[in-house]
Amino acid sequence: MPTQIEGGVTAPVGFAAAGVAAGIKRSEKKDVALIFSESPDTSAAAVFTTNRLAAAPVLISRRHVAESAPRAIVANSGNANACSGPDGMHDAVEMARTAAAELGLDPHQVIVASTGVIGAPLPMDAVVAGIKQAAAGLGSSGFDSAEAIMTTDTFAKEIAVEFEGGGRTMRVGGIAKGSGMIRPDMATMLAFVTTDAPVEAGYLRHALAKAVRVSFNMITVDGETSTNDMVAILAGGMAGGDPIGADSEAAPAFEEALAFVCTELAKMIARDGEGATKFVEVRVDGATSSEDAKRAALAVANSPLVKTALFAQDPNWGRIASAVGASGAMLSPDKIAIRFGDATVAAGGTAATTDESAAKAHLAGHDVAVGVDLGVGGASATVWTCDLSYDYVKINAEYRT
Amino acid sequence: MPTQIEGGVTAPVGFAAAGVAAGIKRSEKKDVALIFSESPDTSAAAVFTTNRLAAAPVLISRRHVAESAPRAIVANSGNANACSGPDGMHDAVEMARTAAAELGLDPHQVIVASTGVIGAPLPMDAVVAGIKQAAAGLGSSGFDSAEAIMTTDTFAKEIAVEFEGGGRTMRVGGIAKGSGMIRPDMATMLAFVTTDAPVEAGYLRHALAKAVRVSFNMITVDGETSTNDMVAILAGGMAGGDPIGADSEAAPAFEEALAFVCTELAKMIARDGEGATKFVEVRVDGATSSEDAKRAALAVANSPLVKTALFAQDPNWGRIASAVGASGAMLSPDKIAIRFGDATVAAGGTAATTDESAAKAHLAGHDVAVGVDLGVGGASATVWTCDLSYDYVKINAEYRT
Repeated sequence: MPTQIEGGVTAPVGFAAAGVAAGIKRSEKKDVALIFSESPDTSAAAVFTTNRLAAAPVLISRRHVAESAPRAIVANSGNANACSGPDGMHDAVEMARTAAAELGLDPHQVIVASTGVIGAPLPMDAVVAGIKQAAAGLGSSGFDSAEAIMTTDTFAKEIAVEFEGGGRTMRVGGIAKGSGMIRPDMATMLAFVTTDAPVEAGYLRHALAKAVRVSFNMITVDGETSTNDMVAILAGGMAGGDPIGADSEAAPAFEEALAFVCTELAKMIARDGEGATKFVEVRVDGATSSEDAKRAALAVANSPLVKTALFAQDPNWGRIASAVGASGAMLSPDKIAIRFGDATVAAGGTAATTDESAAKAHLAGHDVAVGVDLGVGGASATVWTCDLSYDYVKINAEYRT
Repeated sequence: MPTQIEGGVTAPVGFAAAGVAAGIKRSEKKDVALIFSESPDTSAAAVFTTNRLAAAPVLISRRHVAESAPRAIVANSGNANACSGPDGMHDAVEMARTAAAELGLDPHQVIVASTGVIGAPLPMDAVVAGIKQAAAGLGSSGFDSAEAIMTTDTFAKEIAVEFEGGGRTMRVGGIAKGSGMIRPDMATMLAFVTTDAPVEAGYLRHALAKAVRVSFNMITVDGETSTNDMVAILAGGMAGGDPIGADSEAAPAFEEALAFVCTELAKMIARDGEGATKFVEVRVDGATSSEDAKRAALAVANSPLVKTALFAQDPNWGRIASAVGASGAMLSPDKIAIRFGDATVAAGGTAATTDESAAKAHLAGHDVAVGVDLGVGGASATVWTCDLSYDYVKINAEYRT
C-alpha cells in the first residue's frame, strides 16, 4: 500500500512548481500555474476531454503529448480559452512558447491547460507576464500551483504518496481542481500528476488511462464533459533504477500509487461539489458486467431527484430504484436490494420490513453510502458524488452575472 | 390544421369519464380516474416506459393492449404500485377486474395506470370503492379525470381539437399529468388520449408512436424514464365512416390532430415543471440527422448548468456550447451558432460581436427560446423544458418527509 506523504506535485524528487496572480481573474487570486520536471528523461501522458468543442489548449496539448515528450505544464484559471476561434489557438501556442523559452525547452515539450469562462479572449499580456513570473518563482512547494488552478473550488486539492517497488522508494504527487458537479464553463476538471518513478512512455499512457477509469471517470460531472477537461502526468525518473514497464516488478505498486492519488483527488472534487452538504458514495453490486454496474451507479449519482432526497436526508429509495431501472443496466426486479449505510431499505424488489430509523440516522451524517444490488451477477462499481442543495442553484444562477 | 375545442377526453363523441376522491391521497384530493369508450368497436394503442423496474400496472396494461382491445382506462394517483412485488401485480389485476365488472367489459379490456409513491402497498379497499364510485359517476366532463391523475402538478392538463378528414368532422382529446422535470416516484408522465375517429388498430399504434416521438419524447424528464410512464389512446369510431388506415385520405389530418394534442399536453407538462419560472424551447438546426439534433437539444435541455443560467436570465452561451459539444452530436467547431430568441450570441464557433442586451431582454420573459445551429447538416429537432430554480430543490427535498 502507498503511504501518504506531505505535499503535491513537488513531493516527487526533481519537480518544481509555482502559482502566481497574473490578473486574469478579477478577484486578483492566483491564476497561473507552472509545473516543471528537471529531468531531461521525462516521459509524459495525458487524457483529454471527449467534448467536440475541445478548447484550444486541449487541441494543442493533445498534439504536444502525441508528438513530443513534455517536461512542463502551464495552466491558467479564470478563462477557458474555449470557443475562442483562431486567436485562441494562437494564444495557447503562445503560452507554450513563453513557458518553453523560460525553461529552456522546445514549445512542444509544454502541456497547456486553461479553465474558466468560455468564449472570452485571453488577456495575453497578463498571461505572458504571469508565466514569466511563475518560471522565475519555481520552487519546492506545489501548493501555490494547486491554488492557481482553482475556480469555484472552496479548497486547494493536492496529495502525494510514497511507495516501494523493485527495491526503490518512489513518489507520486498530484493537484486537481473541479467543483464536483456540473460546471463545464467554470469547473472544468483538471488534474496534474507527477512521479519520480522512471516509467516507459507507452506503459505510462496505459497506467494513466487505467487509473483515470477508476477515479476521475467515477465522479459525476452530470454526464457532461467540459471543453477543457484534462489529466496529465509527468514521470521524471529521478528516483532512479530501470524504467518501469508493464512487466516490471514495480508495475503493480506504481499502478496502485497512481490509482490512489487519482482516486483521492477525484473524491476531493466530489466532496467540494458546488453547494454540497453531503459526500456520497454509490456502490452497485450484483451486476452482469462492470460497465453495467458503472451505468447504474452513475444513473443514481447523476439523478437530481436522488440528490435532492439526500440533501433532505430522506431515505426515499424509490427514487434510487427508478434511476437504476431507467439506466439500462440488467437487473432482477424480484431481487434488487437498496441500502443506506448498513441499513437495508429495499430487498427482493420491494420495501424491506425493517423500519427507516437506521437509514435516517445514516443519512443525517455528512458522508453517505448508497448501496444497490442488482441481483443478476458478480460485477461491481463505485462512484462518488454530492447532494443537490439550494446553494447549488444559487452558485450556478449567480455566477457570471 | 386542427381547431382547438373545449374539453379533454370527453370532447370526442362516445366517451365518458370521471374523477373521484377515494382516499388514496392523504390530501383528500381526487385520486381515481376512469375513462370509458361506449363503442364496442374501439381500437386501442399505448406506449409504455422502458424502465426495467416497470410498475405492475404497466406490466398488466402492456399485456391487455397486446392481447385485447381495451375500451376503458382506470388510473389512480397517490401510489405508483411500483416495486410492490406479487401483491402489486394482484392489485393491478384487481383494479382492471373492478372497472371491467362495473362497465360490462372483460378485465383485459381495461388499461390500468398508477402514479405516486414507489414501494408502498395500494390501499385496495379505497381503490376498489373509488373505481365503483367513478363508474357510477361517469359523465361528459373530462376535467375531473384530469384532476384525478395529478400529483404535484399545479394545474390540470386537458386539451381537445376538431379536424376534418375524408368528409367527416372528428375529434381528438386528451389529459395528462407530470411536472416537467424529473420526479420518477411522483411525477410519472401519464397521458390518455381519446378520439371518435375510427382507426385501424395497427395504424393507431403507428400513429401514436409517431406522435409520441415529437411530443412526449421531446420534453425532458432529465434522462430518466419513470417506472410508470404511459401514453394510451382509445379510438371509438363514433364519428363514423371507414376506419382510417395508413393509406386513408384522412390519415394526414388524423396524424396532425393527434400530434397537436400530444405536443400541447407535453408542453403543458414542461410548463408546469417543478419550481419552473421559465418555459424553455430548445431548437437545434444544422444537424446531420434528426437523431443528432435531438441528442444535442436534449443535452442542452437536461443540463442543470444551462437551466440555472436560464433561471438567472443570464445569456451564458458557453454552457450551451459545452453541453452540445459533450452530447456526441456531430458539429462544426468553426460554424456553431447560438441564439436566445432572435439575438445571436455566438457565431462561427465564438462570441458574436453583438452586445448582450437583446439576449438579456429575451431571457427576462417567461417563455424562452434557445437556438443552436450545429453547422453540419439540414436536420432539426425541438424539445421543451423549464429552468432549474431554488423551488425545484425545495419541492424535491421536502416531498415525502
